[in-house]
Amino acid sequence: MADISTCSPLTRDSVVEAHNLIKSKVHCTPVLTSTYLNQLASTPQPVTVTGDKEPAEPILRLWFKCENLQRIGAFKARGAFHAMEKLKKEPNWLENGGASKGVVCFSAGNHAQAVALAARESQITAHIVMPETSSPVKLRSVEGYDASLTLCGRFEREACAAEIIERTGARLISPFDHSDIILGQGTAGLELQEQVENLDAIVAPCSGGGLLSGTALSCEGTGIRVYGAEPEFEGADDGRRGFLSGTRVTHVETNTIADGLVGKLGVCPWNIIYERRLVSMMYAVTEENILNAMKLIFERLKLVVEPAAAVPLAVVLYNEEFREMVETTAGKDGWDVGIILSGGNVGVERISDLFAR
Amino acid sequence: MADISTCSPLTRDSVVEAHNLIKSKVHCTPVLTSTYLNQLASTPQPVTVTGDKEPAEPILRLWFKCENLQRIGAFKARGAFHAMEKLKKEPNWLENGGASKGVVCFSAGNHAQAVALAARESQITAHIVMPETSSPVKLRSVEGYDASLTLCGRFEREACAAEIIERTGARLISPFDHSDIILGQGTAGLELQEQVENLDAIVAPCSGGGLLSGTALSCEGTGIRVYGAEPEFEGADDGRRGFLSGTRVTHVETNTIADGLVGKLGVCPWNIIYERRLVSMMYAVTEENILNAMKLIFERLKLVVEPAAAVPLAVVLYNEEFREMVETTAGKDGWDVGIILSGGNVGVERISDLFAR
Repeated sequence: MADISTCSPLTRDSVVEAHNLIKSKVHCTPVLTSTYLNQLASTPQPVTVTGDKEPAEPILRLWFKCENLQRIGAFKARGAFHAMEKLKKEPNWLENGGASKGVVCFSAGNHAQAVALAARESQITAHIVMPETSSPVKLRSVEGYDASLTLCGRFEREACAAEIIERTGARLISPFDHSDIILGQGTAGLELQEQVENLDAIVAPCSGGGLLSGTALSCEGTGIRVYGAEPEFEGADDGRRGFLSGTRVTHVETNTIADGLVGKLGVCPWNIIYERRLVSMMYAVTEENILNAMKLIFERLKLVVEPAAAVPLAVVLYNEEFREMVETTAGKDGWDVGIILSGGNVGVERISDLFAR
Repeated sequence: MADISTCSPLTRDSVVEAHNLIKSKVHCTPVLTSTYLNQLASTPQPVTVTGDKEPAEPILRLWFKCENLQRIGAFKARGAFHAMEKLKKEPNWLENGGASKGVVCFSAGNHAQAVALAARESQITAHIVMPETSSPVKLRSVEGYDASLTLCGRFEREACAAEIIERTGARLISPFDHSDIILGQGTAGLELQEQVENLDAIVAPCSGGGLLSGTALSCEGTGIRVYGAEPEFEGADDGRRGFLSGTRVTHVETNTIADGLVGKLGVCPWNIIYERRLVSMMYAVTEENILNAMKLIFERLKLVVEPAAAVPLAVVLYNEEFREMVETTAGKDGWDVGIILSGGNVGVERISDLFAR
């Protein structure tokens, strides 16, 4: 990353500034709607936990921000391009041979592709450290962006990246725990506000928290509420548990199908989400909820999304806490809710496995 | 359909007129691009038929018109809305109780949903005749649009529709063999021309021929060439065979995976496509080509398309005749080619079956 002294303050204005830096390099992704999904979301859902309560009946109008149609197929392009632009602006970095020293990141997924693409477009060398268990599809994809690929064992990635930094002088590009990344990801929320008037809320998925905290910054002072969405399987809802207890959870190990959301919430995002209270609440959903939402996105929006990207819609449709909150807060006017479809990097074979009859 | 005397002439101007009638009722669907697919299309493909010839190396820039994101998930909404608007404008039709007499169509697929939706939005009764073998998903979808559903045996549909017309006075809405439908479908090609400057060609799938002939009309006099794309399996390339022999093929029976393209080319589309020479050539592809193209659309464009919608990309990527023609005609400048992604109505279970490992 660029030197911390070059970072902009974590404010909405800085998200606007980030957007100005990257908007010629990333897509302004479309926003889609579905009459069917609006009706479904505004219909009481069968509640699995029995009790005295009737299921909630909120009125919801949904606006889907299609970051699955973003470059490299996920919002991660925003943070990576922003990090690269800030690095290029760091005094003397380019002059001292920064471009050939390059950048390094470790990632098994979308961040790797995003850094590889953003680096290539600025003629900066990219070193990508990936787990040796990565799928051939992902490896080929990163190689396709001309990055230098290093495979490592599961617990060796930090040592591996450190060795590359030592040897080459490359700069580490963090996946989420850095201002430049957070401000970059926040530009998705900013665009959504420009594309849809009078939003009441935005729901974004939460893993490391870059997207959620960036979205929260983009909404600060606008009156738009921001909510986080997580899987609950095997404790994947670390963000929610931390949010409710007031202490950030520092260890997570889960095999949720939403494999883009297995990371734990980072320190910098936590500060924005919880300490600064810029996220109103975190909600979690079951694996079945996620699969159902993914099926609806496929069949009704005609969009391919990875399981992680279906988690916010799953919250909106199936989380009774969320739905009761909307019913109570919004009343008869209902709410216009933005939903960030975070990414679409999933192969047809995986889809086939997930929905095999 | 409206009385034939109310039909506009089959010209580009009439497509513009049709667009003005329906543009507030249908989506102006987005146009997507993919750097990866442009590179792939511009790279020689392994040729399966061995011979002395080197594989062609055309330069192609592809523009995908996303009619899978159209209302009801397919371009068919355009023709149905246009037919309904023309019917409402027929002298005395509404005054003589046309809306309650209603409309009738027989279709197992997208045309049924399109007619049901367009009728509902004008408070016109819709009678939909569907094969009793239709999937529950499709039946529910049509019922969801408040249409009156009649199930019939495979060879009874015309008798069944005739009985409804006799009993109710409803008007038949043809799926493709009528000017109002053709002009409506042509609006997809018109929008694409407004969205992408300097197109050299458009490739559209061909079944009954409504979309292909409408697209051809939308391009008349513009210099944009129009090509038809079909599956070749079990003679599904009836349009191509007729085109090459000069005689329309009047019987087709095929089980191609592109189940949206099993119909035979209609008389009115044939006249535009062949007799008026508004389509430059028809090309056909294998089942494997179609599956490969579908996989690329899923994984690279992140779009859900039905197999029929993948046929034009399959032609562009895998049909050597097409590719040689582009290489020869376009030379080093290459071509900007519009590809109509005709629809996205396919369930996750079907996708799962198609791509099962």
